[in-house]
Amino acid sequence: MSVIGVLAFPDVEELDFVGPWEVFAAAAQLGGADRVLLLGETLDPVRCAKGLVVVPDTRWADAPALDVILVPGGDGRRRQMTNPAMLALLRRQASGCRWLTSVCTGSFVLVAAGLATGKQVTTHWSRIEELRGHPVVVRDDVRYVRDGNLVTAAGVSAGIDMALWLVGQIHTPEFAREVQRYIQYDPEPPYARG
Amino acid sequence: MSVIGVLAFPDVEELDFVGPWEVFAAAAQLGGADRVLLLGETLDPVRCAKGLVVVPDTRWADAPALDVILVPGGDGRRRQMTNPAMLALLRRQASGCRWLTSVCTGSFVLVAAGLATGKQVTTHWSRIEELRGHPVVVRDDVRYVRDGNLVTAAGVSAGIDMALWLVGQIHTPEFAREVQRYIQYDPEPPYARG
Repeated sequence: MSVIGVLAFPDVEELDFVGPWEVFAAAAQLGGADRVLLLGETLDPVRCAKGLVVVPDTRWADAPALDVILVPGGDGRRRQMTNPAMLALLRRQASGCRWLTSVCTGSFVLVAAGLATGKQVTTHWSRIEELRGHPVVVRDDVRYVRDGNLVTAAGVSAGIDMALWLVGQIHTPEFAREVQRYIQYDPEPPYARG
Repeated sequence: MSVIGVLAFPDVEELDFVGPWEVFAAAAQLGGADRVLLLGETLDPVRCAKGLVVVPDTRWADAPALDVILVPGGDGRRRQMTNPAMLALLRRQASGCRWLTSVCTGSFVLVAAGLATGKQVTTHWSRIEELRGHPVVVRDDVRYVRDGNLVTAAGVSAGIDMALWLVGQIHTPEFAREVQRYIQYDPEPPYARG
């Protein structure tokens, strides 16, 4: 049984965290028996970047030892890069966790916490140049990249792919395939790449 | 400017509605200027099927005239199929709206409201047989299907594809491609289909 902590903060991008939430929580329900938490600095409702309001179930200060940490992105990541409570949470949990992960610009928060230095990291395509200003090995050619226990995904929807891969690591590829089938993830983007 | 109403109810499946929410709200922000509402029977927090708690911004009874209605699925759809407030909302809004849509088992709610009779409809792969018991033309071979102003998507993640297609219809395919790029929707499911 793994404890998976999905971080929420003001102006977090909705799909960045709800995509992985769906994957992890579906896995938990389909027999994985993992525990998936939505972690907020407080238990107050959080307004996301596009206006959706969600309510965390656990405070950062009360978080149990996490096996997986997921830091989503969105405009709110800028404030989190200097939020002492966020940086303390990440540093406190990082050494004990099995997987330290991010989606989209959430990787900048891991960078700010000093948890990605010298490692391969990716982010949303529009922020690749900004990422080059940090002491990491920037990858602009991947959907997600693993470097040790650090796994960072590209923009927004890439978190779904990364979360499915993680379920395959935490459990088995066969089980991850079952989760993928449950969410009927046979994507057919309706428009060709521009 | 279109008004897009995304319905929320207890035990709604998270990604069923947050996938389209992300697409519609990103389109609104990127210049589409649409208004995206999360509609609840009340303004109380709603617990979704996998435990995420969201807060609606508008009550069904207070909903303005909607151009797009999106009914997500999840276990909670069973109760909604006989919820007078849900059926009244759908029937009141259906005649005036441009697009009447569903994701996953949300199509059963449209069927229950009598808004899909005789039309081509799809749903989650695991509920196709149940759908055959209703007076609709069941499609089990599509990611989403349009029949007049009715558009129904397959399970969970299929709502993202459908929402992008709808943005192309409401605005232009070029604009939808921009939204698709914003959410970096170049999916790479990590496991081959089982």
